Amino acid sequence: MPKDPTRTPRADAQRNLGALLEAARAVFATEGVDAPARTIAARAGVGVGTLYRHFPQRSDLVVAVMEREIDACADAAAELAAAHDPETALVAWLERYTELLATKQGLAAALHANTTMFDALAAYFYERMEPALAALLDAAATAGTVRRDVTARDLLRTVAYLSMPEGDEGAAYTRRMVAVLVDGLRFRAPADTR
Amino acid sequence: MPKDPTRTPRADAQRNLGALLEAARAVFATEGVDAPARTIAARAGVGVGTLYRHFPQRSDLVVAVMEREIDACADAAAELAAAHDPETALVAWLERYTELLATKQGLAAALHANTTMFDALAAYFYERMEPALAALLDAAATAGTVRRDVTARDLLRTVAYLSMPEGDEGAAYTRRMVAVLVDGLRFRAPADTR
Repeated sequence: MPKDPTRTPRADAQRNLGALLEAARAVFATEGVDAPARTIAARAGVGVGTLYRHFPQRSDLVVAVMEREIDACADAAAELAAAHDPETALVAWLERYTELLATKQGLAAALHANTTMFDALAAYFYERMEPALAALLDAAATAGTVRRDVTARDLLRTVAYLSMPEGDEGAAYTRRMVAVLVDGLRFRAPADTR
Repeated sequence: MPKDPTRTPRADAQRNLGALLEAARAVFATEGVDAPARTIAARAGVGVGTLYRHFPQRSDLVVAVMEREIDACADAAAELAAAHDPETALVAWLERYTELLATKQGLAAALHANTTMFDALAAYFYERMEPALAALLDAAATAGTVRRDVTARDLLRTVAYLSMPEGDEGAAYTRRMVAVLVDGLRFRAPADTR
């Protein structure tokens, strides 16, 4: 009788890794990126040794948390496309992306001092986000509800700029202007008959 | 017979001041904000003493040049409104403003170290630009060609964010996205009958 595959050492390691990243995400959000290693390990239910074995430097952990957040946001594109009409899916994804920027920019900024790591993360960001958003844009343009002449890259960049102001007032500004930007996409849509 | 009012000492001083600011603008653009005082004075046709009497510190000169550029851009709003229909005037002014940001952001950034001066300049910027753009927006909304729910302040801020990327690629990005932003203003306009 084969062993339970969820109880192999490898599966345990995978579970630990997921728990560590989830714990780090939560702890970074409340205590900041310099939170003690023991706080993160305790929350994940593992020893500090396990944390350091997976992530020798704090920057390794920050990059892994960011990549996981980027993956989740990119993967949400296909899920939203399956559940909604193309325009709704596009708008919902841009909101999801705006939320990612609002909550995770500080984390990415913490890497700025390490240019190599920051650049690698930025490359990973575009590698995952650009095709995800391009598929949503293409579907909405094919449906005739948004224009075809704005690229995914331009849109990713623009929402990032609009997300720069901080605090509640900044968040309200970002929401208002992302809505105007989306209306700019709707204008000159193929189905726009004016 | 009264003296020629353009030849009074006061008129001479005004002329010198205008020549100095115009010379400083041109020299800053080609040689940067740390260009030698004698280069600026020579271009203005005045002595270095006159330059230092008007502007004891380089930052005084930078602020005066920026204020003059802000005044010119703000004053252009009424001129454009008189010459064109409200929508054309608004779009032309946003292009004028984008150009100001493209050519003068470096100058304003040179003041960043002097927070008091920078904040005063930012306050002056909004004091002049906000009513100028608000009048154009209001006229275009009254004409039914743009929406009413975007403020002049939001728009000034947004074009400034879109103007952050530098170089030719950045300038092309800025142009593309300001055009989408303007289309976002046109969407949901009172005369939009969809």
